[in-house]
Amino acid sequence: MHNNSKLSSLFEPKAIAVVGASGDPSRIGGRPIAYCKRFGFQGAVYPVNPNRGEVQGLKAYPDIQSLPSEADLFVLAVPAAQIPDALAQAAKKGARAAVVFSSGFGETGEAGSALQDEVVRVARETGVRVLGPNALGVFCNVSKVAPTFTTFLEEVEPTPGTLAIISQSGAYGAHLAMLACKRGIGLSHFVTTGNESDITVADCIHYLANDPAVGVIACYSEGVKDGRAFLEALLAARAARKPVVIIKVGRSAVGQQAAQSHTASVAGDDAVFDAAVRFGGAERVHNTQAFIDLVYTLSRRPPLGGNKLGVLTMSGGAGVLMADAAADHGLELTPLPDEARKSLDERNPFGASGNPVDTTAQAVNDMTLVRDALRVMLDQGGHDAVASFFMNWPANPSLGPRLREAITDGIKGFDDRTVAIALNAGEDVKTDFDCAGLLVFEDPTFAVDALAASARIGEHLRQPSPSLAAIEQRGAGASLSGLDEAETSELLRSAGLPMAEHRVAEDADQAAVVAEQLGYPVALKVLSPDILHKSDVGGIALNLKDANAVRKAAERILADVPGHAKDARIRGVLVAPMAEDGVDLILGGRVDPVFGPVVVCGLGGIFVEIFNDVAIDIAPVTEDRAEALLRRLKAWPILDGARGRQRSDVAAAAKAIAAFSSFLAQHADGISSAEINPLRVLPEGRGVVGLDSLILTTG
Amino acid sequence: MHNNSKLSSLFEPKAIAVVGASGDPSRIGGRPIAYCKRFGFQGAVYPVNPNRGEVQGLKAYPDIQSLPSEADLFVLAVPAAQIPDALAQAAKKGARAAVVFSSGFGETGEAGSALQDEVVRVARETGVRVLGPNALGVFCNVSKVAPTFTTFLEEVEPTPGTLAIISQSGAYGAHLAMLACKRGIGLSHFVTTGNESDITVADCIHYLANDPAVGVIACYSEGVKDGRAFLEALLAARAARKPVVIIKVGRSAVGQQAAQSHTASVAGDDAVFDAAVRFGGAERVHNTQAFIDLVYTLSRRPPLGGNKLGVLTMSGGAGVLMADAAADHGLELTPLPDEARKSLDERNPFGASGNPVDTTAQAVNDMTLVRDALRVMLDQGGHDAVASFFMNWPANPSLGPRLREAITDGIKGFDDRTVAIALNAGEDVKTDFDCAGLLVFEDPTFAVDALAASARIGEHLRQPSPSLAAIEQRGAGASLSGLDEAETSELLRSAGLPMAEHRVAEDADQAAVVAEQLGYPVALKVLSPDILHKSDVGGIALNLKDANAVRKAAERILADVPGHAKDARIRGVLVAPMAEDGVDLILGGRVDPVFGPVVVCGLGGIFVEIFNDVAIDIAPVTEDRAEALLRRLKAWPILDGARGRQRSDVAAAAKAIAAFSSFLAQHADGISSAEINPLRVLPEGRGVVGLDSLILTTG
Repeated sequence: MHNNSKLSSLFEPKAIAVVGASGDPSRIGGRPIAYCKRFGFQGAVYPVNPNRGEVQGLKAYPDIQSLPSEADLFVLAVPAAQIPDALAQAAKKGARAAVVFSSGFGETGEAGSALQDEVVRVARETGVRVLGPNALGVFCNVSKVAPTFTTFLEEVEPTPGTLAIISQSGAYGAHLAMLACKRGIGLSHFVTTGNESDITVADCIHYLANDPAVGVIACYSEGVKDGRAFLEALLAARAARKPVVIIKVGRSAVGQQAAQSHTASVAGDDAVFDAAVRFGGAERVHNTQAFIDLVYTLSRRPPLGGNKLGVLTMSGGAGVLMADAAADHGLELTPLPDEARKSLDERNPFGASGNPVDTTAQAVNDMTLVRDALRVMLDQGGHDAVASFFMNWPANPSLGPRLREAITDGIKGFDDRTVAIALNAGEDVKTDFDCAGLLVFEDPTFAVDALAASARIGEHLRQPSPSLAAIEQRGAGASLSGLDEAETSELLRSAGLPMAEHRVAEDADQAAVVAEQLGYPVALKVLSPDILHKSDVGGIALNLKDANAVRKAAERILADVPGHAKDARIRGVLVAPMAEDGVDLILGGRVDPVFGPVVVCGLGGIFVEIFNDVAIDIAPVTEDRAEALLRRLKAWPILDGARGRQRSDVAAAAKAIAAFSSFLAQHADGISSAEINPLRVLPEGRGVVGLDSLILTTG
Repeated sequence: MHNNSKLSSLFEPKAIAVVGASGDPSRIGGRPIAYCKRFGFQGAVYPVNPNRGEVQGLKAYPDIQSLPSEADLFVLAVPAAQIPDALAQAAKKGARAAVVFSSGFGETGEAGSALQDEVVRVARETGVRVLGPNALGVFCNVSKVAPTFTTFLEEVEPTPGTLAIISQSGAYGAHLAMLACKRGIGLSHFVTTGNESDITVADCIHYLANDPAVGVIACYSEGVKDGRAFLEALLAARAARKPVVIIKVGRSAVGQQAAQSHTASVAGDDAVFDAAVRFGGAERVHNTQAFIDLVYTLSRRPPLGGNKLGVLTMSGGAGVLMADAAADHGLELTPLPDEARKSLDERNPFGASGNPVDTTAQAVNDMTLVRDALRVMLDQGGHDAVASFFMNWPANPSLGPRLREAITDGIKGFDDRTVAIALNAGEDVKTDFDCAGLLVFEDPTFAVDALAASARIGEHLRQPSPSLAAIEQRGAGASLSGLDEAETSELLRSAGLPMAEHRVAEDADQAAVVAEQLGYPVALKVLSPDILHKSDVGGIALNLKDANAVRKAAERILADVPGHAKDARIRGVLVAPMAEDGVDLILGGRVDPVFGPVVVCGLGGIFVEIFNDVAIDIAPVTEDRAEALLRRLKAWPILDGARGRQRSDVAAAAKAIAAFSSFLAQHADGISSAEINPLRVLPEGRGVVGLDSLILTTG
């Protein structure tokens, strides 16, 4: 765990030194100085330049040693090869954090990577926290410090606000920040992390989660290297009740390849990333428009208190369009009470009063139709949010102000609700409606998308926060390696998993004896710590009904298997009663190199193989989260007893998943993956039984 | 089939009469006249108003009879109750088409519906084609006629172009048209159909498909009533090689409900609508942004010639984002040849030269990096399209013109390719880049989305067009009703379906005799024209291995079933050999009330029930389309032999689907639905066999 407290010097330094300072405010080494001056940074700014006594009106110093006093933040804008040395010198001059603009490190190949390793070494030795290299830097709208060479600040003047933008990519981060500013969203922080040799997106999330100036955290990521730190950061934001919006690229194979070659990041498994985001209660979006729309929504209004949506339009067509979008997100379009509908219908017989409410063009003549529809929706309808669409009416000089007044009248007294309007008008008109307390969008579908995301975040923040179990480093791996199925099964049983009863038999006669004790029918399986796929080597016989059949089958297995699995240690056969019918789950888990132990489950066979229908969560999970995992499966209705099926014992399955996930977490330092396949889920009340299991160790 | 040739009077009338004309150009009855004057309509315009001798500077006439000569187009803007009479009078004065603005018809309830029926009756009697009622009207940018009261024409001046917008919704259609105009898309036609008492969206598509002034057809629909006319219209556009883009609302249950109450439309089954769109080679989109982006793309450039996409950026992050979007659509990000990469890499060692190509900010210093990357992509990369992203560079006065020049230089000589740029800049800059032959977007993901849709349309238009079989009205339904399984099976066999061999037995002894002839094991099924679900009434026995077992099972079935299915006619039992193992398809079909016969298939059991994994096409289908149907199933890998499975006899399955679809189409006037369930698909080379079948008739 790094000392994130030093990030205070990144965002709110007392003094900043710019090494490689330029007198030209448009050059990389000149911009930070120009920006600090322009935004009114109150601390000292020390330009370092061996060739000039003065830079942009400030006294310059020939080298770091000559600085008149210490600086807690250094900007390093010198050629890559000089960075390690400059960093070491900065440390001696009081640096707690440094921003490295220079490129030519991990993103360029072997030599660059070696140089980056050297930077990391110096950082570790000196304790200086490093942003970059290959980073565009930081802008803090609280302290007004701007150690960045981004050009977006030349185009816009960020208004103060509560949005922190954290981006791995400099260019795209700047693009997002510029769009946010143009949308009128107030900015508290902008930080781009580049190669993340030290400070990561996660570090910044964690630090800013605890900064009272920040209300919403928006991230752009190309890949997370330390998944546990990322999860802890999300949980910190969740604890502080700050929504986190994430756009992470590299979803596709080709995208991941591109992400890996960019800023030298390691993209993890995308489905695990999704699980991590869900675990942390954050919201992931997949394009820029959705990112900005949601960030705007959350910057203006708290997350929705529920998922009841009202739709209000002057165009039936747009209403249906929005209803479709709401249905895609599972928002409830709760209808208005009959009484309320009747009164609206009487006043506007050609309109529609259900939900969507359609005022038709009749509202042009009578704007109280809009006002009263809103009142009814928020009051009697109990809608958490209303999404409305009024085409180009707001832009019409005679209609616009009347419409705005009708809406603001209609929502008066409902400050806890959120009302969005989609419209087609110029920036001035949009600003007018925005200032009236409405969320303003251009596309009605996107308005619904953003409200739905806000509702999901609200739902997450109302749930109890999961806790992240520490991964113990007990070196337990060795004790797990080389287990055969009987031993694995025993281990899992002692961890609380209801594994099937079985007996070990060393030869065919003994197999027949134990089968008699167990009762028929039985199954036989070859017992070996070296054979992963028993059926591939003829190591399984099912449904044996008497001693003779058992003896014959055991003889065959013990005779045949060695021929198919050379060098495998054969310890005999496992004899187990045939299990009763049920639904087979695959309950697996692995220790993800990025996020640590994760539990994965799906229904056996084609569900996993063909439909890729699996659900993933960070381990360990509680029984509640385990059941939620099952409910996320597309195949959930099968467990739930759809279409006349018997309902399966979901509670027992959830208990088993929770126990298995704890086992995974406890052995995360030794296991690479583990699986109970199948975990047979019996009808409700009859429990579950693990029929086969496998543990692969890291050893 | 209506006479669509009269639509020429809707779009290019010789003379237009406006009944209910107003002297106020902002009123409903005043706007058409004002617009016709403003846009320069060259035909005669006759205002009809009993109270004024002159309207907007034109001589007005007290009633229709008094008109000085015939008018082939009438605008009716009088109260609803007067419309039938006005229409009848208009017919006598030369009307070939009429636009009815008035509301208060089918959209308002019973009385309105009756009035609308009356309008339809007059229209049929007189042969006048009616647009509306409750329609916002028409604007034709070729003839400059504007029988519409839309307000959007007050805000924008549509430039001439090849885009026809056809919308059922007036308000939303106007919204779309306004957005199109603001995006700089030239408009040929704008028409809104309202209640569609006569002229439908399909009629307009069909007519405009044959209008040489039209290049791209964009529709907004809330529901299609005459599906066959809609399909014929799409095929006409396809034959004319004109892309059709459709936004149809009412996808969700709540949306469909809203759509039904709006403009009194009947929303069909959404999945069948999707099948119809695919059949017609059109492209459906689900939100306004996607609609406008695609319409813009198709208005500027022909559909893509293939699906190879190059991605070019100055931000690695944006490149990965676009690569992800491309992967979502199945676009190929074919890499550049090694030779070409080497040369790019040497010039820009910190960039990326695969695909995405990332010039990094290095391009600021050397714009030939952009030019040459484009050349290499289009030439050696063979990319059909390039999607690029350059953030706010275009807006920068020193960078923008240099970038534009570099791009236009780079694409010179590749007129058959499409190059899109996503950028963040004002309208002027966007126009500059647009005029340079580039497609201009704001959001890089949306640029990729639009290019992907263009590629899909291109692929459709390169495929041979399917033909639409006429539905014969032979009254064959009666002959199909009351069939038992043996008869149904025989009927399907004679239609070319390989139904399983079976024998009918009237009693248990006879069952045993025929079982001996067929060979064991056999299955027994109760034979009755009245029992749909045989297993529910104990009417099935499987896997019977000798005569004794057959006799006993038959006795049980014949004794038990009558108790479970009172009044059912029991004709005995069907004896059939047990089929060999295979993959079970459900092959079904129905005669959709809107689109006519459709064929539906999916894998049996949970695939259809839980995953709703079915594919639909308009019947009849060729064997090629039948195989395409199977390939669209999520479960396709199971048929295709995924994960060590045997590949199924897909060719035989496709042949059976084609035969079944022809059977459906031939009996479309008598069948409501039919099903072969299961159609067992045996391993490759071994064919398929229908094990059970059912036909429900309309009789």
